[in-house]
Amino acid sequence: MVEQQQQVEQPRRGRPRSETARKGILGATAKLLLSQGLASVSMDEVAEHAGVSKATIYRWWPTKESLALEALLDEWDTSPSSPRDTGSLRGDLLALIRPWTRRLRARPYGRVIAALITEAQTDPEFGAVYRARFVERRREPARALFRRAIERAEIPAETDVEIALDLIFGPIYHRLLHGHAPLTDRFVEAAVDSALAGFVAARSKT
Amino acid sequence: MVEQQQQVEQPRRGRPRSETARKGILGATAKLLLSQGLASVSMDEVAEHAGVSKATIYRWWPTKESLALEALLDEWDTSPSSPRDTGSLRGDLLALIRPWTRRLRARPYGRVIAALITEAQTDPEFGAVYRARFVERRREPARALFRRAIERAEIPAETDVEIALDLIFGPIYHRLLHGHAPLTDRFVEAAVDSALAGFVAARSKT
Repeated sequence: MVEQQQQVEQPRRGRPRSETARKGILGATAKLLLSQGLASVSMDEVAEHAGVSKATIYRWWPTKESLALEALLDEWDTSPSSPRDTGSLRGDLLALIRPWTRRLRARPYGRVIAALITEAQTDPEFGAVYRARFVERRREPARALFRRAIERAEIPAETDVEIALDLIFGPIYHRLLHGHAPLTDRFVEAAVDSALAGFVAARSKT
Repeated sequence: MVEQQQQVEQPRRGRPRSETARKGILGATAKLLLSQGLASVSMDEVAEHAGVSKATIYRWWPTKESLALEALLDEWDTSPSSPRDTGSLRGDLLALIRPWTRRLRARPYGRVIAALITEAQTDPEFGAVYRARFVERRREPARALFRRAIERAEIPAETDVEIALDLIFGPIYHRLLHGHAPLTDRFVEAAVDSALAGFVAARSKT
């Protein structure tokens, strides 16, 4: 049981056969999720599509939701992990976020994410995992860019970075989830520009 | 059938007995939704709690989701429909939005809204109803405040109001749905201030 728990947190890497099975499961899951939505996908179906036993899946992921979460993370983490330094916070943020939003709008991810949020709101344990692994996976690199901008005195040291992150990611998730308007590059730029203009305004008030 | 359809769109008002039943159904639904979440609530349970037959419920609402949507709208529409004119767009927006966000954070609405979004993403017909009745119910009054501010030349006439609305509502929904940080009054102010600072910055660039 202890070993199983550890594997849930940290799938074994570097073992070719396991890694192939893991990638196969995640790929099959992502494909099924995007075509059917979370509610319709079953572990049986994932096992069939990935060509593994259900026991193999449960060895790594205790629930469908935890598997779905990792399948999305795995899909998105093909982009380089350390985005280039463009010399400005605006440029750095756009270089980090734009590839992700382009990916988001290319496929029906909104439906899958909405289902994961519902589960996160229903099961507090999954909620903690969702926030730590999914929400933070996007916030932490952006937070690092803000820290760098503070270090080089581009933005005020007293900038509330957590609020700033919400002002950027909030509008993106809003269009993704509510689907009332498209998640265009221009919109992503507007969200970043507005969040950054907010600091300048706050600074000029003090 | 025609009459039934009309009632779904426009429940009969001014007929005391129907109105009492309608209010009873919506109240019971809201209570069950908030305590159990959408997935666990059944039409049987709503009928039992409201003291009506299931046929009465289906006469007005064809699905559980449409009933849930109206129950939330009904709960929130107790506030005055035309917010006071505070003399500034910032003040007008806060007077409109703050009562809603205070209500949002007082009860577990995030879970119910996440479930409705999942359904809106899954069933296009419900998605259209969700956006028209739920999303627009908040956006339209805010849009009117922006129009008024443009008329009195407080903000540039070329302001992209739809983007502005997303910059304000996006961060609010983000904290509500992801639950990674609290939906405080200060946060709502930051979202409004940042969206408004964005226009000032855009104006000074041109």
